[in-house]
Amino acid sequence: MRIMFIGLGLIGGSMAMALSGYPDAAFYAVDRDEWTRFEALGRGIVRSCWASIEDAPLETMDVVILCLHPAAAAAFIKENAHRLKPGSLLTDVCGVKRPLHEAVEALESRHFTYLGGHPMAGRERGGFANATADLFRGSHYILTPDDSVPVGAVRFMERLVLHMGCADIVLSNPEAHDERIGYTSQLMHVMALALCDQHLLFDSYGFEGGSFRGATRVAALEPDLWTELFWVNKETLANLTDELIEKLGEYSALLRSDDREALLARLTASSDRKKEFDRQRSIETSKLPLFK
Amino acid sequence: MRIMFIGLGLIGGSMAMALSGYPDAAFYAVDRDEWTRFEALGRGIVRSCWASIEDAPLETMDVVILCLHPAAAAAFIKENAHRLKPGSLLTDVCGVKRPLHEAVEALESRHFTYLGGHPMAGRERGGFANATADLFRGSHYILTPDDSVPVGAVRFMERLVLHMGCADIVLSNPEAHDERIGYTSQLMHVMALALCDQHLLFDSYGFEGGSFRGATRVAALEPDLWTELFWVNKETLANLTDELIEKLGEYSALLRSDDREALLARLTASSDRKKEFDRQRSIETSKLPLFK
Repeated sequence: MRIMFIGLGLIGGSMAMALSGYPDAAFYAVDRDEWTRFEALGRGIVRSCWASIEDAPLETMDVVILCLHPAAAAAFIKENAHRLKPGSLLTDVCGVKRPLHEAVEALESRHFTYLGGHPMAGRERGGFANATADLFRGSHYILTPDDSVPVGAVRFMERLVLHMGCADIVLSNPEAHDERIGYTSQLMHVMALALCDQHLLFDSYGFEGGSFRGATRVAALEPDLWTELFWVNKETLANLTDELIEKLGEYSALLRSDDREALLARLTASSDRKKEFDRQRSIETSKLPLFK
Repeated sequence: MRIMFIGLGLIGGSMAMALSGYPDAAFYAVDRDEWTRFEALGRGIVRSCWASIEDAPLETMDVVILCLHPAAAAAFIKENAHRLKPGSLLTDVCGVKRPLHEAVEALESRHFTYLGGHPMAGRERGGFANATADLFRGSHYILTPDDSVPVGAVRFMERLVLHMGCADIVLSNPEAHDERIGYTSQLMHVMALALCDQHLLFDSYGFEGGSFRGATRVAALEPDLWTELFWVNKETLANLTDELIEKLGEYSALLRSDDREALLARLTASSDRKKEFDRQRSIETSKLPLFK
């Protein structure tokens, strides 16, 4: 089986490293960065590496994994889908799924299977230089198959991502994915940025504990990528941000009141909600993987 | 040297475990929980353990470490300070420092040194059952000495906390401490609670990545303790919450605008601010510990 990564950045590079030893597979890649190609070849992570999509033998690949930013991935589909091998599998790792599905649906004909994917792992610094084989350890890997996707393709992706160290695969659809990711990922980035815009940031050296590091880590993001992700999802994300503002406003009002019992009641209710979420999560998780 | 912990909960218990092997010291404790006393004695973590402060030989201790919630710690000072050994050191681990300093200042006379402390480490679940020797590894330990504290007491605390695995000590004063902790710790807890109050929480199983886990972890808090911490600092915390609301509102407005360039500019500025903070932090950290 011939598998090609389009892009060996943080995600593509980490996937290629994590797939070392995957049985009966040969890995190839396209990356425009010369140092990345040199390293990936030299370390035996891929068998061959091309500088441009035009020169790469897409036509011979059984699996193509798009590891590009969303707009570039959608452009790849528009411009290169006709070159994919008949019956092959195309997947991607983008953090929003509607633009990819739309690009596939806009094709005049389809002779391949498209299965959208999104590994729930990342790092503040991008690029092959920051890629590591353990990036996905314990992470969810979301797939967004449409009704035409053969179950075998889902099973194949499950084997692949479990080999990479992922905890499980999670099945969703593009709309539900983009809404939930708006909450669990994009909103966390908006919040981290807003927290770091506060006036005390540079006065807080020595006062950071685990909660501060955990909440602000992702603020050191790649602006181009995240503007792209936010923009696709802007209405959902604005609504989620406004909901957060509303909840924070309720806390602010309680703090400004003289009703300590009301604050205690709210803290009890909110923390109970989180404890119940954690409890149910451990039940949810024990149900997976999807295909035994 | 005889060192007594008042309270062997998560922090007191972890400190006692982390201080195993500290030279020329014998450790004692007071804890009202029978199982905790049984365990702490049986595992050799302390030499003796009493059920009540009244029965414990406070008068013979060179160092007393208050590991109680703030109101209980302030009450200890009011009721028991007269029993402390002349010239001994009293310290505490409370997450707010003004109430402790106020309790000490309210005493008619002082025959001991009080040095406020605050380890920047914790865990969602409290109690001795969750205490571990590695809780403080890599954490800051804040001290809030007033002008009367001998340097030797600060040096002693530094040796103690470095033995516990802390990265460094950080010197502050009660007012600056409470403001900064309002930002780096209490606000992170308000935000985690508010995030978990949002309507999508229970729809997000399988979509959680590192950013979500990092930002919401501390929502599973102890309501009594955190209501106490918030209440002491309510005005500061309400102002910080309102500042966060204001910054989030700016992001919401950008997301609702049609100006993608403005959103990119804001993401660039905010993430640059965080990257600069991280860069300066690595310089700050290399300056410590305070006393070589």
